Amino acid sequence: MKPVVIIGAVAAGMSAASELKRRMPDLRVIVYGKEKYISYGACGMPYLIGGEVSSPERLIVLTPEKAREQRGIDLHVEHEVISIDRKSKTVLVKNHATGEEFTQEYEKLVIATGARAVRPPIPGIDLEGIFTLKKYQDGLDVKEYLDRRKPSRAIILGGGYIGIETAEAFKRSGMDVTVVEALPRILTLLDEDMAALVNEELVRNDVRVMTGRKVKGFTGDGRLSTVTLDDGTELEADIALVSAGVVPNSELAAEAGLELGEKKAILLNDVLKTSDPDIYAAGDCSTVCNRVLGDKVYVPLALGANRQGRICGENIAAELSGEQPAEFSCILGTAISRVFDMEFAKTGLGEAEIARNNLNNLRSATVKAKNLAGYFEGTSPMHLKIYYDIDTKVIKGGQIVGGRPSAKRIDTIATAVTAGMTLQDVYNLDLAYAPPFSPVWDPLLIAARTGMKQA
Amino acid sequence: MKPVVIIGAVAAGMSAASELKRRMPDLRVIVYGKEKYISYGACGMPYLIGGEVSSPERLIVLTPEKAREQRGIDLHVEHEVISIDRKSKTVLVKNHATGEEFTQEYEKLVIATGARAVRPPIPGIDLEGIFTLKKYQDGLDVKEYLDRRKPSRAIILGGGYIGIETAEAFKRSGMDVTVVEALPRILTLLDEDMAALVNEELVRNDVRVMTGRKVKGFTGDGRLSTVTLDDGTELEADIALVSAGVVPNSELAAEAGLELGEKKAILLNDVLKTSDPDIYAAGDCSTVCNRVLGDKVYVPLALGANRQGRICGENIAAELSGEQPAEFSCILGTAISRVFDMEFAKTGLGEAEIARNNLNNLRSATVKAKNLAGYFEGTSPMHLKIYYDIDTKVIKGGQIVGGRPSAKRIDTIATAVTAGMTLQDVYNLDLAYAPPFSPVWDPLLIAARTGMKQA
Repeated sequence: MKPVVIIGAVAAGMSAASELKRRMPDLRVIVYGKEKYISYGACGMPYLIGGEVSSPERLIVLTPEKAREQRGIDLHVEHEVISIDRKSKTVLVKNHATGEEFTQEYEKLVIATGARAVRPPIPGIDLEGIFTLKKYQDGLDVKEYLDRRKPSRAIILGGGYIGIETAEAFKRSGMDVTVVEALPRILTLLDEDMAALVNEELVRNDVRVMTGRKVKGFTGDGRLSTVTLDDGTELEADIALVSAGVVPNSELAAEAGLELGEKKAILLNDVLKTSDPDIYAAGDCSTVCNRVLGDKVYVPLALGANRQGRICGENIAAELSGEQPAEFSCILGTAISRVFDMEFAKTGLGEAEIARNNLNNLRSATVKAKNLAGYFEGTSPMHLKIYYDIDTKVIKGGQIVGGRPSAKRIDTIATAVTAGMTLQDVYNLDLAYAPPFSPVWDPLLIAARTGMKQA
Repeated sequence: MKPVVIIGAVAAGMSAASELKRRMPDLRVIVYGKEKYISYGACGMPYLIGGEVSSPERLIVLTPEKAREQRGIDLHVEHEVISIDRKSKTVLVKNHATGEEFTQEYEKLVIATGARAVRPPIPGIDLEGIFTLKKYQDGLDVKEYLDRRKPSRAIILGGGYIGIETAEAFKRSGMDVTVVEALPRILTLLDEDMAALVNEELVRNDVRVMTGRKVKGFTGDGRLSTVTLDDGTELEADIALVSAGVVPNSELAAEAGLELGEKKAILLNDVLKTSDPDIYAAGDCSTVCNRVLGDKVYVPLALGANRQGRICGENIAAELSGEQPAEFSCILGTAISRVFDMEFAKTGLGEAEIARNNLNNLRSATVKAKNLAGYFEGTSPMHLKIYYDIDTKVIKGGQIVGGRPSAKRIDTIATAVTAGMTLQDVYNLDLAYAPPFSPVWDPLLIAARTGMKQA
């Protein structure tokens, strides 16, 4: 049999390769990674900068040597797949170390090319001192620049998760930090009231937040010194992080004529096949199904990427063995993060999804409670909101913003949404109580009751 | 109409009274509380001793004045109900402040007399310096003794939740602490392997744990100075805490001829009525239904008590208005606590329930993982175990022992058990991931996958 070829050697690609080799140890599985590094914890990079990850090496989940020796994967780093020929079932590969190009045939192909940071065409964006934070090398580059140049004024372009995580990291490094967000507010994944609480925490920690303004230009003598906004404001800056979102690396798939979906991500069916039955895809280059609405969306998050990769491996093994493939379980878009002492999380439907899909049968119940027993030292406010269907009272989503620890409780809401629980079902839950962990009535129970009273 | 009378003014009693007044503001609701204090956070007392609750007043949830003025409850503290006459629907009440006794008639009666700490008949148990920790006054007494006598050697009788929480509190107060447990191990609510991890944390923090030994006697010249064990060991001690469990205060109900259940707790039906249709009961004096096994058990925990109280209030209001009563949602026995830097929690079925009920269709899957991303500063080991039905693969319970924060995630398992989720359902959950909160694959997902591979 011809080998299985996997394009991409980070989360989804290596998960697919590892699962495939676990199930079919004798199968030849070739993985091409464009970069030097494989399988790293990309989400850890803001914490590497902020000092909560002690060294870049700690972010490496798997080295190429281990992937080859322990997992038996035929791994080639610094190899870029340039094109896919679906007719001959081959890929054209370029070895960046040698410059050599060669053709490799495949039995099944997995596209796991990931996503890349958006670099908007702003004048001056190529000046020294302007970074994105997506690839492992990006983390190394920022870290090296901080050590070498000791910048003192930072501008963050974009108030999404990565932007504000890095704002905290820069602040922890002693810098003066400004976040510039083009939209009227930061963290648009969260509801407006919830995002406002996070904004307050940034401001409380002396991070400047400028919303509704765009960066018009970067200037400097070779190296960044000034950032100009569209309202004319000029901000002095020694470093800038562009965190304006990511786009799927789907060009290779598009050129091969594969169907694309939302945001030009590679469109997948329920068993993670593309429009070519011999080509699978997984991770941040592809769509994922949304559990609540049932549509295919572009939500590039780590767990989904790893899970898609693993299921790709599982399904190729099944297909090659004549067995039934597994369906990818849809996601809720559960996301979590933290700035300074404030945690925040979301799952399922919220304002953003309601607006995007014109949903008009949802209502929310919000509570402000305490994360621990009210009388316990270190207890903090915790804001919790749930969304439910007005008719059926079934929970469709939730959000949490609160002091440490509070946000990981979003998992309870994600589980309730997945199970199709009603407000009454949630109110009946026997959740854990002890003073260092929760009030007697967990905020989720209070929110469910609030919803029941509204209903 | 005659008034509704509630016996007991702590969690269940005050919850019942408050809910009843909320629903029927014009109804006369009389509450008799035996003690001076009402509605306090009993679970907070170990933390009051250990300094994580800054003052005893903080534990007071509601004062008698507020109960009367803001909630309109006809509250009488230091009033003990001595007997119930079901025929005439009256109670005989003693006012402990004046010594006066009187009869009060009721339309509906709620027994919420709670539980009391077991005080085993050990010689010398009445010496000064020997305490239990159940009532608010107990907390004040221990605190006062610590301040006045500055004891330096403490003995804890009993290695349950309260025992080891107080062991930590005493240690934090600078004492030399020994826990003496009659059974072969501490924390028998947890599985043996999980409890052993907690035992290690106690030992690591210099708390002596002596299992399989009983206290035979206390000696001292008026005040405790020596504790003698059944193997002849003599331990010097300036203070002893007896935490040998609790028993329901059900004598009043028994004398009135009401039916009792497990551990002589007042037996309740699904709408929280006793065997007398005009008498309800709630909280630590009564049984509660177990969701997984469907039987009526004695599990005196705070959330269940508050919830039963509230539903009692709801159901009496419904009955008096000719509406349908609500069924009490059964519990899972979800429990959580912490010693030093180790958290632990349990929900649903485990070794204890398997042994007690001769269940032979359950299997467990255990993982040792990290609570946060492995590369994140301050990440700790986290042990997670789930129990599932061998045939149906439905999750029936779980336990967590791990570093901070980890144990509150038991709520996700409790929700999955309540929803009847299978291993596959749990594995498919879209749980929250970010480096400061979890590994990409949450330990629960890994446990579910481990179970699937076993299955």
